[in-house]
Amino acid sequence: MLIEQIHDPADLKQLNPRQLKQLAQELRDEIIKVVSDRGGHLASNLGVVELTIALHCVFDLPEDKLVMDVGHQSYAHKLLTGRWELFKRLRQQGGASGFPQMDESEYDAFTAGHASTAISAALGMARTRDIMRGDYSVVALVGDGALTGGMCYEALNDAGQSGTRMIVILNDNDMSIAHNVGAVSRYLTRLRQSKGYLAMKHGVRSRLENMPRIGRPVYRFLVRCRDWVRSLFVADKFFDALGFKYIGPVDGHDIKQLIRVLRRAKNDDKPLLIHVVTQKGKGYTPAEDHPDTFHGVAPFYIESGESKGEERVSSGEVAARQLIELAENDIRICAITAAMPSGTGVDAFQQAYPDRFFDVGIAEEHAVTMAAGMASQGMKPYVAIYSTFLQRAYDQIAMDVCRNSLPVTFLIDRAGLVGPDGATHQGVFDLSYLRSIPNMIVAAPRDVRDLKKLICLSQDVNAPMAIRYPRTCEDLGPGIQSQRDIRVGEWELLSSGKDVMILAVGRMVQCAMQSTIELMGKGISAGVVDARFVAPMDEAMLIDTAGRAKLIVTAEENALAGGFGEGVLEILARSGIHTPVMTLGVPDRFIEHATIAQQQAACGLDSYGITRRIIEKLRELSEAGR
Amino acid sequence: MLIEQIHDPADLKQLNPRQLKQLAQELRDEIIKVVSDRGGHLASNLGVVELTIALHCVFDLPEDKLVMDVGHQSYAHKLLTGRWELFKRLRQQGGASGFPQMDESEYDAFTAGHASTAISAALGMARTRDIMRGDYSVVALVGDGALTGGMCYEALNDAGQSGTRMIVILNDNDMSIAHNVGAVSRYLTRLRQSKGYLAMKHGVRSRLENMPRIGRPVYRFLVRCRDWVRSLFVADKFFDALGFKYIGPVDGHDIKQLIRVLRRAKNDDKPLLIHVVTQKGKGYTPAEDHPDTFHGVAPFYIESGESKGEERVSSGEVAARQLIELAENDIRICAITAAMPSGTGVDAFQQAYPDRFFDVGIAEEHAVTMAAGMASQGMKPYVAIYSTFLQRAYDQIAMDVCRNSLPVTFLIDRAGLVGPDGATHQGVFDLSYLRSIPNMIVAAPRDVRDLKKLICLSQDVNAPMAIRYPRTCEDLGPGIQSQRDIRVGEWELLSSGKDVMILAVGRMVQCAMQSTIELMGKGISAGVVDARFVAPMDEAMLIDTAGRAKLIVTAEENALAGGFGEGVLEILARSGIHTPVMTLGVPDRFIEHATIAQQQAACGLDSYGITRRIIEKLRELSEAGR
Repeated sequence: MLIEQIHDPADLKQLNPRQLKQLAQELRDEIIKVVSDRGGHLASNLGVVELTIALHCVFDLPEDKLVMDVGHQSYAHKLLTGRWELFKRLRQQGGASGFPQMDESEYDAFTAGHASTAISAALGMARTRDIMRGDYSVVALVGDGALTGGMCYEALNDAGQSGTRMIVILNDNDMSIAHNVGAVSRYLTRLRQSKGYLAMKHGVRSRLENMPRIGRPVYRFLVRCRDWVRSLFVADKFFDALGFKYIGPVDGHDIKQLIRVLRRAKNDDKPLLIHVVTQKGKGYTPAEDHPDTFHGVAPFYIESGESKGEERVSSGEVAARQLIELAENDIRICAITAAMPSGTGVDAFQQAYPDRFFDVGIAEEHAVTMAAGMASQGMKPYVAIYSTFLQRAYDQIAMDVCRNSLPVTFLIDRAGLVGPDGATHQGVFDLSYLRSIPNMIVAAPRDVRDLKKLICLSQDVNAPMAIRYPRTCEDLGPGIQSQRDIRVGEWELLSSGKDVMILAVGRMVQCAMQSTIELMGKGISAGVVDARFVAPMDEAMLIDTAGRAKLIVTAEENALAGGFGEGVLEILARSGIHTPVMTLGVPDRFIEHATIAQQQAACGLDSYGITRRIIEKLRELSEAGR
Repeated sequence: MLIEQIHDPADLKQLNPRQLKQLAQELRDEIIKVVSDRGGHLASNLGVVELTIALHCVFDLPEDKLVMDVGHQSYAHKLLTGRWELFKRLRQQGGASGFPQMDESEYDAFTAGHASTAISAALGMARTRDIMRGDYSVVALVGDGALTGGMCYEALNDAGQSGTRMIVILNDNDMSIAHNVGAVSRYLTRLRQSKGYLAMKHGVRSRLENMPRIGRPVYRFLVRCRDWVRSLFVADKFFDALGFKYIGPVDGHDIKQLIRVLRRAKNDDKPLLIHVVTQKGKGYTPAEDHPDTFHGVAPFYIESGESKGEERVSSGEVAARQLIELAENDIRICAITAAMPSGTGVDAFQQAYPDRFFDVGIAEEHAVTMAAGMASQGMKPYVAIYSTFLQRAYDQIAMDVCRNSLPVTFLIDRAGLVGPDGATHQGVFDLSYLRSIPNMIVAAPRDVRDLKKLICLSQDVNAPMAIRYPRTCEDLGPGIQSQRDIRVGEWELLSSGKDVMILAVGRMVQCAMQSTIELMGKGISAGVVDARFVAPMDEAMLIDTAGRAKLIVTAEENALAGGFGEGVLEILARSGIHTPVMTLGVPDRFIEHATIAQQQAACGLDSYGITRRIIEKLRELSEAGR
C-alpha cells in the first residue's frame, strides 16, 4: 500500500502521477470500507479524493490554510494527515470526528459542520495574514450546495472588493444533499456545459487520440493551453460582479490538471474562484447512481449497497404522512425545507403536492421569512428544518414570524442529542432559543403517536408553533396513551408518585418512565408528567404537582441554561412554591460525537443516570432535614 | 394643501403630473417637520418620496402588496395611507411606528425592522397568490444597503429560478447607514454610471433644450425610448445570473418616468428587478450633504440642521476610545462592524487603524465567522453590532466562535430597551440567547467606567466574550466605584440590606440603587449587587447573599424567559437554597415604541416599579408566614 508511505502530506510531493492515481484508489477503498462499517458521509467524500490529493501536493499544510465548508468532505484529508488509525473509529466515541476539527489536528484550519461559512473564515485568515505580514495561502473549499447560503455571498462580496489574496474552490457536483435549487445552480450548469470544457474533454481528445503519432503530442499541447483558451471563451458574469477572477471549469478527477491549475492560482495575488467539477459518489457505483441516498449513510454492505441495520421509521416520515393527510382538504397547508427534503421526510409531501412544496436550498433565513410572507396572506406553512440548522434563522423566527404572531409551524427534526454527527449537529439549544421569544408555542411529543396529534393540533393553531422531535421516536404504545385530545399548553399526568415527580420533555418521557420502575425497586415512589409544552407551560398542573411532591425533577434533552427546567423554576418562584427542584439536561459544554445512548449517559440523561441522581438528591434532602 | 384631498391612495390617481410634484413637496415638508420634532429616519425617507407616490399611482394597495425592506423609508407611504394624524406622534407611545407594521394599517403588507427580508416575504406572498389563484402584484422595495445581506441573495436565487411573477425595486442611493461596501456595490455604481443613463440625463437633455422648437419634442421622444434603448446598452450580468430581468437605471426623482416603468413592469409575468437611483436626503440640504448623520436623527432645528438635544456621550464612543488605546500596543486587536461604524462608535477606530478595521456591510453572519477565522490565526477581533441585529448571527456565534472557544469579543450596543425604534429593535433577548451557549462569557457594565474596565479585561481573556450595554450609560461616579479590578465571573456588592438583596444587571444597577433609597423610606433594608457577569455567574457571592436575605430580587433589561433571573434560580435550586426569589425583567411580549423611561415603567423596571413590587412581595411573604 502506497498510503503506508505517507506519514505527512509532504511525502505526497514525492509521488509521480501514476502513484497519485493509485493513492486515490487506496483512499477510496478505505473510505468505502470504514463508512460501510461505521456510517457517515460517503458520496461527497468519494467526489473530492483527487481534489484533496492535488491540494496537498500544491499547498503546504498546516502553514497554508485549507478551510472546508460543511466539512463532510474531509475524509481523504484526514487520511492524508496522520489520522489513518483514528479514522477507523470514524464518528465513534474517541474516534475521528466526521468533520474537520481544530482540536483534532493542526491540519484542520477551522472547525466546520454548518454550511456556507468557509469563505468568511478563510477571509478572516487572509486578512490576519496581511495584518501580520505573513505569506501563506488560504484556500476555501466550498460545495455548490453551500453556495445557495447567503453567507457565502456576503463573504464573496466583501472579499471581492477587498482584493485580498485568497482562493475559493467551488466543488461543483450539482448536488447539496439533494439536487440543487436556485438560479445560480442553473447558471453553474451553463458554465459547466460551456464549450471550452466539454469540447476539450470529450470531442477533441477522442478525435486526436485516433490520429497516429501527432495526436497525443498535439492533445498534450492543447491541454496545456486549454485553461488559457477557456478563460477567453467562458465568459463568467456572476463571480466577476462579485470581484472574483473566475477560473474553470476544471475536471475534478484529473489530478494532473488540478495540480497545474492550483499551482498557477497559488502564485496569483487576487481573489480567485476555481470552478472544479466533480462527481458525487465517484468510484463506487451505488453511490454514483444514488448520490442522494449515499450522502449520509448508516453501515451498509459494500457489494450491494444495502443498509446493514433494520429500517426504522423516521419521525419525519410520520410527520410528513400526517401533513399530507391534512393537506388534502386544506389548500392553505404547504411545506418548505432548506435543502433537506429526504432527511426531514417532506419529500413525500413534495410528491403528493408538488405545487405546495418549496425547497429553497441551504437558505434557512430565507425559508423562514418566506413562510412568514405566505402566512401573512393566509397560507399555513410548515417549515421542516433540523434543529441545529434552524439556529441560522433565529432572528427571522423572532422578528418576522413571532413579532407578527403569524401561523408558521416549525417541524424541527434531529432535536436533542444526535449521536455520531457530534458537536456541530446537536439539537440541544432549540428549547432555550425558542421559548424566550414571545408568542411562540413550543411542543415536544413523547412518541410518534403524539407527534401526529400535535401536527393535527397545529392545523387549528393561529400562532407560531414549533414541534421538535428526534430523528426517530419510539411508539410508546397505546398503554400510556391518553384518551383526551391534546390542547395547547396542557401537560399530561402519566403516573403519580408520592416522593418524586419527574416532568419530562419529549424523548425523556420514556427514560423517566423507566427510571420510575428502577426507583420503585429502591422503595421510592416516583411519577411522570409528560411536559409536552415547553411554552406555554401548564402552570396549573405544575403548581398542583409541585404542591404535593417532595422533589420535582425536570428532564430535557436541551441545554440547562435557558431551557425547560429554568422555566419551571421561574413559575414556582413566582407562585411562592418552595418544593425542591432538580433540573436535568445537557450541561454547559459541547457534546462530542458518540452514540446517542453514550451521549445521554454522559449527560446523566439515561434512566440509570436519572435514577442515580434522584436517589442522591433525596439523600441530600433527608440529610438537610427537609 | 393637496395632501388634504388624499383620503385614500386611490385619490392619487386623479392628480396630474404637476399636482404629483406639489404633493411630493408637501410630503417632504411634513416629513422634515415631524422628524425635526420627534426624531426618526430622515435621509432615507426624503429619498423615496417620488418613488412612493409613483408606486401608489400604479399599484392598488392593499390588494397589491408592497413590502418595504428595513422599513425606515415608509414615512411617505404612511402619510399617503390615512396616517397623517398618527404620523404627528411618530415613534411616540400610541403614535405611528417608525416602521411598517401589519397591525398598524392594512396598507402595510409586512412588518419590517431588520434588513434584507423583503424579497423573501414578497416571494412568499407571490407564491401564495399563485397557489390561491389570485391576481395581485407583489412589489419588494429594497435598498442597495440591504442587498449586502445574504438573505437577499437567497431569496433572489429562489425567486429567479421559480420564475414567479414579482417585482423587486432596488432603491439605490449608494448608502446603507454609512457608505456601502462590497463588490456588488461597486458593480451597481458601474451600472449607475453606464452611458445610457447619464448621457440621457445630463448630456442630451441640456443640449436638446438649447435647441429652439425641435429640442423639447425630440427630447420627449427620446425619453420615451430611453428605457428600451438602455436595455440594449446596459448589459447587466449579476441579476441575470440570478434569474431576474434587469430594468434600469431609472431616475428615482422623476415621477413620470417612474410611473411609466412601473406600469410596464406591472404587466410583466416574470421576476423583474428595477434599478431606481435616488438621492438620500433629497430636498433638504443638510441631509443631502450629510446623509450619514441624517440617517437616524434626534430632534433638530430645521434651519440649521443642528440637534436640539444636548450631546450625550455614547457608550460606543467610550468603548471605541478604550479599544483604540489598547490597540496601540497590541497588533492583534482589530474591529469589525456590519454597516454601523458610526452608530457603534467604531468609526473612530477606523480612523486610528484603517488597516485593522473592517466594515463588511449588512452581513452580521459573515462578520462573526470572519472574526472567528481571524481569531483562529491569532488576532483579537472586536465585533461591534447592535444587540437586535446580532440575532442574525446566533448560529455563527455558537458554532464558529463558541464551539471553538475562540477569543472574539462582542461589543453589543443598543442592549436592553431602546425606546422609539420599538419592537423590532429591542435588545432584550441577548442575555437569553448568549448565556445558553457553552464557553461564552456574558458581561454587562453598570456604567461607562465599568465598560472601559470590561474592555481592558477582555484583552486578556482567551475565550469568547460578550459585553452588552445601552446606547448611553451614565457615569455613576467614583462614589460607588470599587477599588478592585474586575475579574471574570466576579460580581460586586455595592450595598448591603438585611431584608432584600437586589441582583441587578447593567443599567438596572442604577434603578436598583434608587429603589433601595425609596425602600429605606418605607423602613425596608435593601442592598444591591452589581451582577455584571451573567455567564459565568458569581456562585459564591450568590449563595452567600441568598443565605442571608429574606428575599432575592433579580433585575435585568432582558426577557425573563431564559434570562439572568432564571439562571440565578437554577444555581439556587442546585445549591439547595430556598430563599424566595422574585425575577424582574421584560415580560413575555414584544415592547412597542415609546421612550425608554415609558418602556421601563411598562415592564415594571423603573425604580418605582421595582420598589412597589418588592413591597408587595414582602407583604405576600409575611402573609404566607415566611
